[in-house]
Amino acid sequence: MFHLKHPPRTGAARRSNPGATSTSAISERPDVIIFDVNETLLDLTHMRESVSTALNSKQELLPLWFTTMLHYSLVGTVSGRFEEFGAIGVAALQMVAHNNGISLTKEDAQSAIIPALFHLPAHPDVKPALQALKQQGYKLACLTNSSTQGVKRQFEYAGLTDCFDHRLSIEPLQIYKPDRRAYAWALGQLNVKPAQALMVAAHGWDIAGAQAAGMQTAFVARPGQSLYPLADTPNYNVTDLVELAHVLDID
Amino acid sequence: MFHLKHPPRTGAARRSNPGATSTSAISERPDVIIFDVNETLLDLTHMRESVSTALNSKQELLPLWFTTMLHYSLVGTVSGRFEEFGAIGVAALQMVAHNNGISLTKEDAQSAIIPALFHLPAHPDVKPALQALKQQGYKLACLTNSSTQGVKRQFEYAGLTDCFDHRLSIEPLQIYKPDRRAYAWALGQLNVKPAQALMVAAHGWDIAGAQAAGMQTAFVARPGQSLYPLADTPNYNVTDLVELAHVLDID
Repeated sequence: MFHLKHPPRTGAARRSNPGATSTSAISERPDVIIFDVNETLLDLTHMRESVSTALNSKQELLPLWFTTMLHYSLVGTVSGRFEEFGAIGVAALQMVAHNNGISLTKEDAQSAIIPALFHLPAHPDVKPALQALKQQGYKLACLTNSSTQGVKRQFEYAGLTDCFDHRLSIEPLQIYKPDRRAYAWALGQLNVKPAQALMVAAHGWDIAGAQAAGMQTAFVARPGQSLYPLADTPNYNVTDLVELAHVLDID
Repeated sequence: MFHLKHPPRTGAARRSNPGATSTSAISERPDVIIFDVNETLLDLTHMRESVSTALNSKQELLPLWFTTMLHYSLVGTVSGRFEEFGAIGVAALQMVAHNNGISLTKEDAQSAIIPALFHLPAHPDVKPALQALKQQGYKLACLTNSSTQGVKRQFEYAGLTDCFDHRLSIEPLQIYKPDRRAYAWALGQLNVKPAQALMVAAHGWDIAGAQAAGMQTAFVARPGQSLYPLADTPNYNVTDLVELAHVLDID
């Protein structure tokens, strides 16, 4: 069944965002909504203090650390060597420290990242939006690069455990997003076709990967995040999940 | 034929570098030495001014831009969509600008990157080292993520064209390093087995990928670069290419 999206609700084009120039006119109501976790649901800015302390108070290095972690997760994927996401984060922090002349042991890097990663609050819009989407009859899942145990602990701390019907980590597959195989595997686990699933993410790379896998996509424009200018426009472009729940209230 | 490396020449362990804890004791004399280009041969700090101007004089964002470009090159590889490296660089600059509240058009991003990328000087150690390695009888090649035309223009400007027997870009393959297929393809082009080839790079991810492809590896510790702590130790770890030529003078 196809539904017209309500044009005033789609957030239309956000012209300040380099990848957002239009939205698709018609989208099928998805059977399942799949959420990315870090930054999309959980507020990573709460790691700023511990990471910044490890990096001699250079707060501006936080995005470089996170991007380096993402880059090296794919380095492992394309070179066929899997390492757990937290270990990659520790290694990335060591590299960023070294490249900026900061002395940091592996143990100090672990102390700066691992406890903080398990104690991230949800963005304030997340819980009410997830509850609204559930009431609208959607099946809710997550697909994260965090480990299986990691996302379990993250959701327990953030109080999100009961919001989801399925909690998926790429860890059993050992292939990181946005590799197309990660989305294909998740869709198999959920027993849905790509076009029946909506991937929700605050990262341009996640949107690009989900598009390549044939999924519907919704970009959440969290502060400091943008779409990838060379990817297609997502089906939805919203400022937060409450707006998404409003847009998806189409039945 | 196997040769003992000269222990005093290997640079031994650089303890300040998070990934360098030992060097392998014995390495086969390689038939061909394959160099990465950007940062390994060419000095990217000369892009700092134009990129910094585009980013409202925030020089500290240069590494974030370059890492974002590398990350998105792999996003394309794992999602099966190839874009030319320069175009990814422009898109990455637009994203970094947007995420830092800086207004930057695509045209301004292109102006900041493309001309500068074609006018990078070689690091001062590069030419004398390449000449020494040639005199030692090594076949020299490069393997770069830059486009075929891009590396041609880069080498013309830097005066490196005649230093190489083979100039390889991943562009015909449309798969970026450090995907193992990129190294395997290059080895096929050069008609050598992995263990007969030495990959030389200033990037931990390039070293990790070449290792996974079965090649010998040499890390060049350019300022602001480090090995990947989760990868194996490279066969050689040197401060510049003159040191590498000295270490490889083993016959």
